[in-house]
Amino acid sequence: MHILLTNDDGIYADGIYALYLELKKIAKVTVVAPDTERSSVGHGITLAHPIWQKKVRRGNKFFGDGISGTPADCVKFAIGVILKGKPDMVVSGINHGPNDGCSVFYSGTVAGAREGALLGIPSIAISLDAFLNPDFSYAAKCGARLAKIIANEGLPNGTFLNVNVPNLKRSRIRGIKATHQGLVPLHGTFQKRTDPHWRNYYWMTGRMPLRGNKSKHVDSYALQQRFVTVTPIRSDLTDYGHVQQLDRTLPKTF
Amino acid sequence: MHILLTNDDGIYADGIYALYLELKKIAKVTVVAPDTERSSVGHGITLAHPIWQKKVRRGNKFFGDGISGTPADCVKFAIGVILKGKPDMVVSGINHGPNDGCSVFYSGTVAGAREGALLGIPSIAISLDAFLNPDFSYAAKCGARLAKIIANEGLPNGTFLNVNVPNLKRSRIRGIKATHQGLVPLHGTFQKRTDPHWRNYYWMTGRMPLRGNKSKHVDSYALQQRFVTVTPIRSDLTDYGHVQQLDRTLPKTF
Repeated sequence: MHILLTNDDGIYADGIYALYLELKKIAKVTVVAPDTERSSVGHGITLAHPIWQKKVRRGNKFFGDGISGTPADCVKFAIGVILKGKPDMVVSGINHGPNDGCSVFYSGTVAGAREGALLGIPSIAISLDAFLNPDFSYAAKCGARLAKIIANEGLPNGTFLNVNVPNLKRSRIRGIKATHQGLVPLHGTFQKRTDPHWRNYYWMTGRMPLRGNKSKHVDSYALQQRFVTVTPIRSDLTDYGHVQQLDRTLPKTF
Repeated sequence: MHILLTNDDGIYADGIYALYLELKKIAKVTVVAPDTERSSVGHGITLAHPIWQKKVRRGNKFFGDGISGTPADCVKFAIGVILKGKPDMVVSGINHGPNDGCSVFYSGTVAGAREGALLGIPSIAISLDAFLNPDFSYAAKCGARLAKIIANEGLPNGTFLNVNVPNLKRSRIRGIKATHQGLVPLHGTFQKRTDPHWRNYYWMTGRMPLRGNKSKHVDSYALQQRFVTVTPIRSDLTDYGHVQQLDRTLPKTF
C-alpha cells in the first residue's frame, strides 16, 4: 500500500511526523505538505501564484516535499508532479486542534482528505482535540489502524472519513464511534484593537465550535464524551429533496 | 428586505457592482467584500492574521466595506461588526467565471453563500460562465429575480442555491433548470517553469471542470446547453448510508 500523507499545520509540525512514523509500519508513505502552516484555509487552491517545492529532511533523513500551497494543492501536486499517478490512499493530519462539526468547511486538513476523495482515492483526515499540550501518540496509532481497515473495506466513491481523537491516554478513551457531522455554526466574534499607528484592526475568535447538540450521534458531543469519532463525509452536496421543490417553484425562464 | 452582498473577485470587481444595482431595486443592500481578489480560496477563514476594514466608494457614492479577508470572513465580519445582527439574505457574486461541478469546493464566492447558510440565512451564490468578455447584465437580473423568489419561498435550513448563468444574451438562453452538482473532478495539471534566478516553479492549470457527464440534470452539462442552473447545496455532509456500515465495520476500541 502506498499512502500520500499531508496536513495543514505544515511539513515541520509534530502531528504529521507522529503519524508518519506509524504509517511507515504498514505502508510506503510519500509526504507532500505545506511548507508553512496553512490552518483554516478550507479547500482553497493556488491558481494566481506560482507553486514552489522544496525537499525537507527530518530526523536526519529525507522526509518529504514542502509545497508553497494549501493541503488541496499538495494532493494535486503530489499526483500531478511527484508521483505522476494516484496513491492507494490519502491521509491528512494529525491536525493540532479538533475538526468536528462545521470545522469540516474551514479546515485545510479536512480539505486534503476531501481532495483525495474527489479524485476517487480512499481518504482519511485525522485531528487531535487539543490546542495546548498535544499528545499525538494514540491518535497516530488510530490513524494507522483506520488506514488498514479502509484499505480492506474501502469507502463509497467520493466519501472520506473525518476522524477526531481526544487528547487523552488510551486508558481514558471510551471507544470508537461512527458519528454524524455536527451542524452548530462557529459564531465568529471579533476583538477590536488599535495598531501602533492608531488604526483599528480586528482579530477573529470563536475557534472552537459550540458543542450544544447533545445527540450521542454527533461528532462534537461524542468527542467531548471521550470517544474517537469517525464521520463519513460525502462530496455530492446536492440537496436532492429540494431539487424537486425548486422544479415546481422556479419559472421556466426569467 | 435587507441583503448582505459579498463576492470573491473583490469589492472593486464589475460583477458585484452589476448585481448591487439590480438588488438595490428590490432591497436594502449592505456590501461587505474582500478588498482584493480572493478567487479559489474555498471556505478559508482568517484566524492567524488581523482583519482590516476600509470604506469603499464607487460611482461617487459610498458602496461598501472592503475587508482584508475571504468571502466567509466578510459574512462573519458583516454580522459580527458592521450589522451587529443577521441580514435577511446573503447573496454572493456575480463571480467572473463558472462555479459548477466541483468548483463548489474551491470557490470563495460559493463559500460566501455557504457561510450564510451555516448561520441559518437564506443564501445564493451566482456566477457567470465566462473568463473573457463577461456581460453581467442578464446574470444580475437573474440574481435579483431569484432573491425575490427565495424571499417568498424560503430554503431548507442549511441549504443554499448555487446559480450559474451562461454568458449570453437573454434571447439565446434556453431557460432555468434545477440541477445537481456535477462530480467530475478538476484534474490539476502543472506547468513547470524557471524563474530569473534559475529556480523551478509551477503554475497550476485546469481551472475549468471537465464537462464529461452528459446528464441533463447535472449543472455543468445544463450550463453548457445554455440553461441557467440552480443547484441546491446542503451543509450537512454526513454520508448517512455509510454511518451504518461503519458501525458494523469499526472495532469498539483500538
